[in-house]
Amino acid sequence: MPTWNNLDQLNSFKALAQKKAKVNLADVLSGEQGSARVREYDVKMAENMHYNYAAKEVDADLLKCLQDLADEAELTEKFEELYNGAVINTGEKRLVLHHLTRGQLGEDVVAEGVNKREFYTTQQKNIAAFAQKVHSGEIANAKGEKFTTVVQIGIGGSDLGPRAMYIALENWARKNHTLKMEARFISNVDPDDAAAVLQTTDVEHALFILVSKSGTTLETLTNESFVKDALKKAGLDPSRHMIAVTSESSPLASSKDYLAAFFMDDYIGGRFSSCSAVGGAVLSLAFGPDVFAAFLDGAAAEDALAKNKDITKNPAMLDALIGVYERNVCGHSATAVLPYSQALSRFPAHLQQADMESNGKSVNRFGEPVSYLTGPLIFGEPGTNGQHSFYQLLHQGTDIIPIQFIAFKEGQCGVDVDIQGSTSQQKLCANVVAQIMAFACGKQDENRNKNFAGGRPSSLIYGDALTPATLGALLSHYENKIMFQGFLWNVNSFDQEGVQLGKVLAKRVLAHETDGALAAYSKLFDI
Amino acid sequence: MPTWNNLDQLNSFKALAQKKAKVNLADVLSGEQGSARVREYDVKMAENMHYNYAAKEVDADLLKCLQDLADEAELTEKFEELYNGAVINTGEKRLVLHHLTRGQLGEDVVAEGVNKREFYTTQQKNIAAFAQKVHSGEIANAKGEKFTTVVQIGIGGSDLGPRAMYIALENWARKNHTLKMEARFISNVDPDDAAAVLQTTDVEHALFILVSKSGTTLETLTNESFVKDALKKAGLDPSRHMIAVTSESSPLASSKDYLAAFFMDDYIGGRFSSCSAVGGAVLSLAFGPDVFAAFLDGAAAEDALAKNKDITKNPAMLDALIGVYERNVCGHSATAVLPYSQALSRFPAHLQQADMESNGKSVNRFGEPVSYLTGPLIFGEPGTNGQHSFYQLLHQGTDIIPIQFIAFKEGQCGVDVDIQGSTSQQKLCANVVAQIMAFACGKQDENRNKNFAGGRPSSLIYGDALTPATLGALLSHYENKIMFQGFLWNVNSFDQEGVQLGKVLAKRVLAHETDGALAAYSKLFDI
Repeated sequence: MPTWNNLDQLNSFKALAQKKAKVNLADVLSGEQGSARVREYDVKMAENMHYNYAAKEVDADLLKCLQDLADEAELTEKFEELYNGAVINTGEKRLVLHHLTRGQLGEDVVAEGVNKREFYTTQQKNIAAFAQKVHSGEIANAKGEKFTTVVQIGIGGSDLGPRAMYIALENWARKNHTLKMEARFISNVDPDDAAAVLQTTDVEHALFILVSKSGTTLETLTNESFVKDALKKAGLDPSRHMIAVTSESSPLASSKDYLAAFFMDDYIGGRFSSCSAVGGAVLSLAFGPDVFAAFLDGAAAEDALAKNKDITKNPAMLDALIGVYERNVCGHSATAVLPYSQALSRFPAHLQQADMESNGKSVNRFGEPVSYLTGPLIFGEPGTNGQHSFYQLLHQGTDIIPIQFIAFKEGQCGVDVDIQGSTSQQKLCANVVAQIMAFACGKQDENRNKNFAGGRPSSLIYGDALTPATLGALLSHYENKIMFQGFLWNVNSFDQEGVQLGKVLAKRVLAHETDGALAAYSKLFDI
Repeated sequence: MPTWNNLDQLNSFKALAQKKAKVNLADVLSGEQGSARVREYDVKMAENMHYNYAAKEVDADLLKCLQDLADEAELTEKFEELYNGAVINTGEKRLVLHHLTRGQLGEDVVAEGVNKREFYTTQQKNIAAFAQKVHSGEIANAKGEKFTTVVQIGIGGSDLGPRAMYIALENWARKNHTLKMEARFISNVDPDDAAAVLQTTDVEHALFILVSKSGTTLETLTNESFVKDALKKAGLDPSRHMIAVTSESSPLASSKDYLAAFFMDDYIGGRFSSCSAVGGAVLSLAFGPDVFAAFLDGAAAEDALAKNKDITKNPAMLDALIGVYERNVCGHSATAVLPYSQALSRFPAHLQQADMESNGKSVNRFGEPVSYLTGPLIFGEPGTNGQHSFYQLLHQGTDIIPIQFIAFKEGQCGVDVDIQGSTSQQKLCANVVAQIMAFACGKQDENRNKNFAGGRPSSLIYGDALTPATLGALLSHYENKIMFQGFLWNVNSFDQEGVQLGKVLAKRVLAHETDGALAAYSKLFDI
């Protein structure tokens, strides 16, 4: 059984923290040694992807410290505990089983008499069978016409992950003739969100997926009513247009209001649910079950790498360790995730939830305050767009913000133009390469306004193309990175008590049970 | 003439920095005094909006310090210099005239023999006349059919602002029957961006706007070729489907490749160009010139408030000062912008550029390094979505991240449902109110996991509804806030030298003029 210690109790962390001389990126990346470094500081990921950390402020000496830290913190042992079904979510006393939705990493996990791997697999089979019936027209609208659009109603983890994955593969699917249905998403309780989606959706040919684990999420139930109203106004029977993704114990589970229900459970956190029925239903309907299966396979292959004790063979663990070095030794407060792929435009928003909701904690897994920094702020937009926006601050601002670049050799659509001797895709890749070097090495200029200090570290995840399998691997990489960082900070990455107080106060406002400032604020909005 | 001093040279800043006892938000917001504070810590904005700072860590004493700082830094005097046509952009030796696109704040500004206010107004008139001809069908495609879609091709300031403004008003326009044309946007050099937009656009009925001040932006020219290819493949004449927005000296200005050209100039920075022809063309075509005019009027009305020396009557200046207090005295490294309005979903991305590109600098306006922190990281997503995502870290993370909330009493679409005794719009507003109090006051709990420390400051901009006029006022507020903060930090907020190095290196990569690490990185992408 691994021991759960705070980060600052570990000797290997103390040794790491005492390292004063930072690696000078301009030096180590110069000349032939720089070239060799780019080749060597590179870890294989699944699906022919790579995690390259040549532009991170590490050297052999520091890597040794990070390996010591991984060992002393028993990171892979803790991962093993997790996938074998220990109660890793201590706050809510729950197992953490999202890895089982895409593979069998260790022993069978049986909970409440159910083999959970079989449970998740069965849900996927049920979804696949349902999706095929929808695609074939066996399940159709009242007129017997095929459904052409699928609309996910969910918020947070029931929205951001599935939405980011859908956007990531929409054009790939269009190009590969496997876009079965267009997907849309309703999330916000702002009535303008649902109204805008509905007024541009052909509801007669739309299938709605209501996603709520508890079956009680206020935003989602409100938006369900919104949708039901719209369906009724169009003379349609809502129960013929809606399915549910929920837990078996939820009020939605056996309701006649839905054509079908598919299940997740308490062991799948919302932000880790893209591989469960939460992502499975919408992605299988949109792209077909085979595409979703390939996505799961990519994630499973990447998960397998996370079992390696050697940090140079475990990209997620190495990424996590470097991140903790940057956060707790260098003191950087944010991380930018910058995909050079328009298809990943909402991937940073998904990671923002996955990471910040998991590790934005001030107490350890035993509820004791920690005396070090935990999860950083995560943000990002696709390159090259970001280059014409906030990169100014990343290059010349007073804070250093470490960067994670993501890029692919090929585009998804297979359409390109050659301008000034290069294609757009080549320009895109040239830009990511150029940015890495510009951030790392900077450039001295007598005009201080044009001076670049450099020393701004970045990593690069690269691969051939963004496909269902590579997307799965990418998702797994980040999920496991977040998990390992949670282990290092000794926090419970799988609860989110910080979202509760706002909910309680909002209910009080709506019930007019307010006084003082809360009442005064409510009055500003005539509530 | 005002004196341009570094922030840390000002006595009033030294006095501010020495203030040690932070205002305790839970105390000042409790009971009757809390209620009074919400009413009193409130500044009128234009268009019946308000800037409320009751949940900021300020009191009468600290406000006095901020007023002293505003006075000593001569903020309004510097603003006056700016709008009267001084060379405020010292790096590029340019005037800064975006306020003139929407009003006449001071004296006539004449540059190169041209009255600039008249120049901008003429462009708006020309655009309005052109838009009306497009809407009436006088300007039409080769078959004489009306254009139904307008597609903006631009990046950075030619994309983020106009796109955010379009999204902000699209549903309002639909509801008010003034959506003349649907707008779409192509920005990224990633070929998948243009390909995805084009394959879902009816190009035969589409009008494209090429936006590049210099006429040389690589991404934009590449995407222009992309679009021309698509038009030719569809058997269409590109010159009948494209207009240009550029400077008069650009190669695009008098090209026969365009149906028409509208002009901006070097005195309008890209990130401040939403009110110029850059935003004017696409917004006038999409919504009609009257809507764009109302947007400008809202911005002009808000600009007028920024002339007030009294910080309690100058919301942008007060917001700027509180931000500098949070950054340079409290040491907070980021600011979250959280609009409780789905229509503002891309407004934070626009502010990310506007703010981070303006004030992410390490040298002052004379090119000397500064020894204090400048612009913070800006990020945000709409509430309530964010509540189910990164708010966990904002509530319980180890860093404090100040927040700017934006909310409106009414929605835009006028469709709503009543669930559990309240409408969605009421739930939305109840949530923003609840979050302000939860962040500010927290809640003690014996279970430390459920404990909220509070002391997390936020401000609130609120109004009746998001309309063209209130959107203009909102934009102006932030533009002027950024300007005032630039004055305080004594940086040049109007250049962006930090984006140049990456461009130079990318060109070198594409020309295969690389060695060492740059060559090794290029090889990863077969360049």
